[in-house]
Amino acid sequence: MYRSHSCGELRTSDINKEVTLSGWVQKTRDKGFMIWVDLRDRFGITQLIFDEQRTSSDVMENARTLGREFVIQVKGTVIERESKNPNMVTGDIEILVNDLQILNDALVPPFTIEDETDGGEDIRMKYRYLDIRRNPVKNSLLFRHQVAMKVRNYLSEEGFVEVETPYLIKSTPEGARDFVVPSRMNEGQFYALPQSPQTFKQLLMVGGMDKYFQIVKCFRDEDLRADRQPEFTQIDCEMAFVEQEDILNIFEGLTRHLIKDIKGQDISEFPRMTYDEAIRTYGNDKPDIRFGMKFGELNEVTQHKEFKVFNDAELVVGIAVPGGASYTRKEIDKLIDWVKRPQVGALGMVYVKCNEDGSFKSSVDKFYDQEDLTKWAEITGAKAGDLICILSGQTNKVRGQLSALRMELAERLGLRNPEEFAPLWVIDFPLLEWDEETERYHAMHHPFTSPKPEDIPLLDTKPGDVRANAYDLVLNGNEIGGGSIRIHNKETQALMFDHLGFTPEEAKAQFGFLMDAFQYGAPPHGGIAFGFDRLVAILGGQETIRDFIAFPKNNSGRDVMIDAPANIDQEQLKELHIKLDM
Amino acid sequence: MYRSHSCGELRTSDINKEVTLSGWVQKTRDKGFMIWVDLRDRFGITQLIFDEQRTSSDVMENARTLGREFVIQVKGTVIERESKNPNMVTGDIEILVNDLQILNDALVPPFTIEDETDGGEDIRMKYRYLDIRRNPVKNSLLFRHQVAMKVRNYLSEEGFVEVETPYLIKSTPEGARDFVVPSRMNEGQFYALPQSPQTFKQLLMVGGMDKYFQIVKCFRDEDLRADRQPEFTQIDCEMAFVEQEDILNIFEGLTRHLIKDIKGQDISEFPRMTYDEAIRTYGNDKPDIRFGMKFGELNEVTQHKEFKVFNDAELVVGIAVPGGASYTRKEIDKLIDWVKRPQVGALGMVYVKCNEDGSFKSSVDKFYDQEDLTKWAEITGAKAGDLICILSGQTNKVRGQLSALRMELAERLGLRNPEEFAPLWVIDFPLLEWDEETERYHAMHHPFTSPKPEDIPLLDTKPGDVRANAYDLVLNGNEIGGGSIRIHNKETQALMFDHLGFTPEEAKAQFGFLMDAFQYGAPPHGGIAFGFDRLVAILGGQETIRDFIAFPKNNSGRDVMIDAPANIDQEQLKELHIKLDM
Repeated sequence: MYRSHSCGELRTSDINKEVTLSGWVQKTRDKGFMIWVDLRDRFGITQLIFDEQRTSSDVMENARTLGREFVIQVKGTVIERESKNPNMVTGDIEILVNDLQILNDALVPPFTIEDETDGGEDIRMKYRYLDIRRNPVKNSLLFRHQVAMKVRNYLSEEGFVEVETPYLIKSTPEGARDFVVPSRMNEGQFYALPQSPQTFKQLLMVGGMDKYFQIVKCFRDEDLRADRQPEFTQIDCEMAFVEQEDILNIFEGLTRHLIKDIKGQDISEFPRMTYDEAIRTYGNDKPDIRFGMKFGELNEVTQHKEFKVFNDAELVVGIAVPGGASYTRKEIDKLIDWVKRPQVGALGMVYVKCNEDGSFKSSVDKFYDQEDLTKWAEITGAKAGDLICILSGQTNKVRGQLSALRMELAERLGLRNPEEFAPLWVIDFPLLEWDEETERYHAMHHPFTSPKPEDIPLLDTKPGDVRANAYDLVLNGNEIGGGSIRIHNKETQALMFDHLGFTPEEAKAQFGFLMDAFQYGAPPHGGIAFGFDRLVAILGGQETIRDFIAFPKNNSGRDVMIDAPANIDQEQLKELHIKLDM
Repeated sequence: MYRSHSCGELRTSDINKEVTLSGWVQKTRDKGFMIWVDLRDRFGITQLIFDEQRTSSDVMENARTLGREFVIQVKGTVIERESKNPNMVTGDIEILVNDLQILNDALVPPFTIEDETDGGEDIRMKYRYLDIRRNPVKNSLLFRHQVAMKVRNYLSEEGFVEVETPYLIKSTPEGARDFVVPSRMNEGQFYALPQSPQTFKQLLMVGGMDKYFQIVKCFRDEDLRADRQPEFTQIDCEMAFVEQEDILNIFEGLTRHLIKDIKGQDISEFPRMTYDEAIRTYGNDKPDIRFGMKFGELNEVTQHKEFKVFNDAELVVGIAVPGGASYTRKEIDKLIDWVKRPQVGALGMVYVKCNEDGSFKSSVDKFYDQEDLTKWAEITGAKAGDLICILSGQTNKVRGQLSALRMELAERLGLRNPEEFAPLWVIDFPLLEWDEETERYHAMHHPFTSPKPEDIPLLDTKPGDVRANAYDLVLNGNEIGGGSIRIHNKETQALMFDHLGFTPEEAKAQFGFLMDAFQYGAPPHGGIAFGFDRLVAILGGQETIRDFIAFPKNNSGRDVMIDAPANIDQEQLKELHIKLDM
């Protein structure tokens, strides 16, 4: 037995007990006649004391050889500390050591194993097993486990059943790129790794396995943007005999439960907003509503004068920055530079200072009078002391730019408090979106999403206007979940494939099994999937997912610790009936 | 809202309630003036009644169009049944229908959706979504979920933390074949899907993430034997600062908890048996100890006469079949034919009838006298009325043959009661096993398993005799779990790789990251992995895993429902830098 207790559990009530502890040397302090060692394991840190007067000389000597991260086992007596440390749960006691075994020595780690480390991202990823020893990473992984348990227990108590769907499935050309797996036994054929268990969960509904969920790995071979992973985890859910309202209620319940249980915060009914309203009011479909700065559309009150920039614009739109009237000219110029960065892409910015005396001072005073500016302030909700920032141009672009500015300003103003939680349902997503590259409509959610029945006639005339029974759950400006009510009859599904440019043959080859299934008594059904990595990160008060994943990959999809992917040998390729084509 | 209640919840206390139910038509009975419909959903079956006197004529008419597996929604009143059905939980009530909506019609299913179906395996797999509607499959999947929840909650309460390890890892030539995944972003390189999270869980231990578990999919590209799947689920566990005894205790606790919680059976301390003893006494390393018929080795008491078959044999070994003395000559001949089948491969069988009067009658009376046979009976534990079956030949082969016979007889004698649970630890497995094909030693468990320290000197002299700190948990003749104490220092790991025929360069290329990790303070650690599919099947009282997997693959590794694997297009291959080689 390597230990009688963990390094996190001894208290004053254990004083005088003989104990055995094992762990890592966090640090040592050698005063000559006394040596203190902080011993660490997953459960905490306990201070060891070696004392010339009370510890045998060979144990003392051995203790002097200890380096950081050595793995040791000690036996000793729990004693009361002379100078207690109220910041440690074990801070009232220490272990007077009488026996020391070095279980394994350790090279000096390439970065310090401390909460604040000196290691950069790259080195920490290469030695991820050392990084995990650090509290911030360790605690993130423990937190992830807690959230997963809470999700599973909640859904299970609500009558959901976790069903494992297969990982070796079939490639579909729709959507993102699949990772594929050559089959040795089926020459020339390939499995694909699932981008989501979408079709399987729908087949489970056809199979009567109502109220399905699964916490499951999914795979997407995308060019990785920052904070995306080629493999990621989803909470995947589906229910039969439901309408959108049922889904929203159940998963609002789950999210409310998590926020309450983990953060102790009571959130009442989640607000809902249509996709159109979100786009119009916040410039994007996942608005952070922890703060205001809502968009005010200013076309009507700006396009009546000689200011060509506004007159030529498809959209003139502004936000009121709280307290921004006090910005210096230099600060405002910097803000203008910020919106002109290529990542944002605005051509310029018009601003209006709302003075405390009720007057206005703008960068376009040449064109607009106080009466005009009063209207702008009204529409953007600007109060005395605020700064109105106005962008103009092509509608979609300018909305994206102003949205970026709004988020940046909120960040600077400290309005994005990670301990505040503001969930929001965004509903009535468009069914289709136009893809410039392929010059056709794509399914915005996926090809199984049902159009709103009343919009179906528009499929032939204005496909872009057809709304779907699709919804996203947004938390603090992040999409944490999304789903839809699915199509459940063969005719509608065929119509949908047709509008997505599938020939009947292609549809049959790709999704024949689903269309077949719809003939044998498919119930109405719908579902939702949560991005678990991101949900955990946000609940953990962070915006990057990497530290909530034990072994993440870098932006080239590489695991730099194990050095994967890697070459494989010719023999293996041959067995798989493939060769390299480089 | 599609329903106010499920089809499994209405009782007499609900009588007079107005309810809405949705589900599938299980069956209809049309008596002209009355129609009964059994309506089914995941939660149960509720009887609907349409009555000419009380139901409107258009609803009656509509009800007459209902076929099996139609999906419908009804509104009606809960009423007391005239003839109650005590076999159904909803059998005291029925729904007098006043409104009927057909939500989806259904073709006649290709097999009956009944507990006992007329569909063969192939058709059921092709239409698995219909098969899942059947109670035996549905209940198996619900049961699997319950077991998974119990495992997770038990381990979590014991302080274990579930950590997700990556699915896109690196191929290793050791062990079974990997499935590989070509990388688009890393030209010419491949990921592999994990055969188990072995190295990652060891790295988690090095990372201080003590007490890890994960219920996780694993992948093996093996030629599939019956009841094996290319993707399977493991309960994967690892702990730091443990010895074998700690692991056995903790996971004996888990298994005992599951058997108690699920089956209501109290199992006291699990027996333990060394690998050698298991092989000697039962002819295999996963003995079913629900029944006796232990092997009696008879060399000493058979090789002193003129019977050449025994005299030439490396091993003469027998079992006593309870009550077998009453077998007719014909029955015994059939048994002899059975052991001579190519799948078993014995050349013949000697038998001894133990008569009720204490005398013996054997097939080798020519060579042996009653005194000899008395000794055989003693050694095999045969009592009056038993039949001793004796096989002889090359030790390994004959043990396998007699083990097969023992299992077959137990099956015939009804000794393999699926509701009885007899767990067993098999310990002290050999570290290495000789592989005839490659003419070298392979790791019996895996190359990270630690040899017993006292056996390390044998590595150079008698490698086959070195015992490992490795153990299997056997339940009713099935290996349900296996694990080991791992090597945790670089030198021993290098020694092990050396004995497995790795050059230092190969070892570094394959497992350099693990050897590196061992330099930075690796704790003693060990673990176990349970085959979750099989565990669930056995706890569910069955021996085949297929019905406990929602979407299993067939023996060619195909998913016949979605028709995967499948061809992928040239464009996709090109992006992945591979081409077919057929």
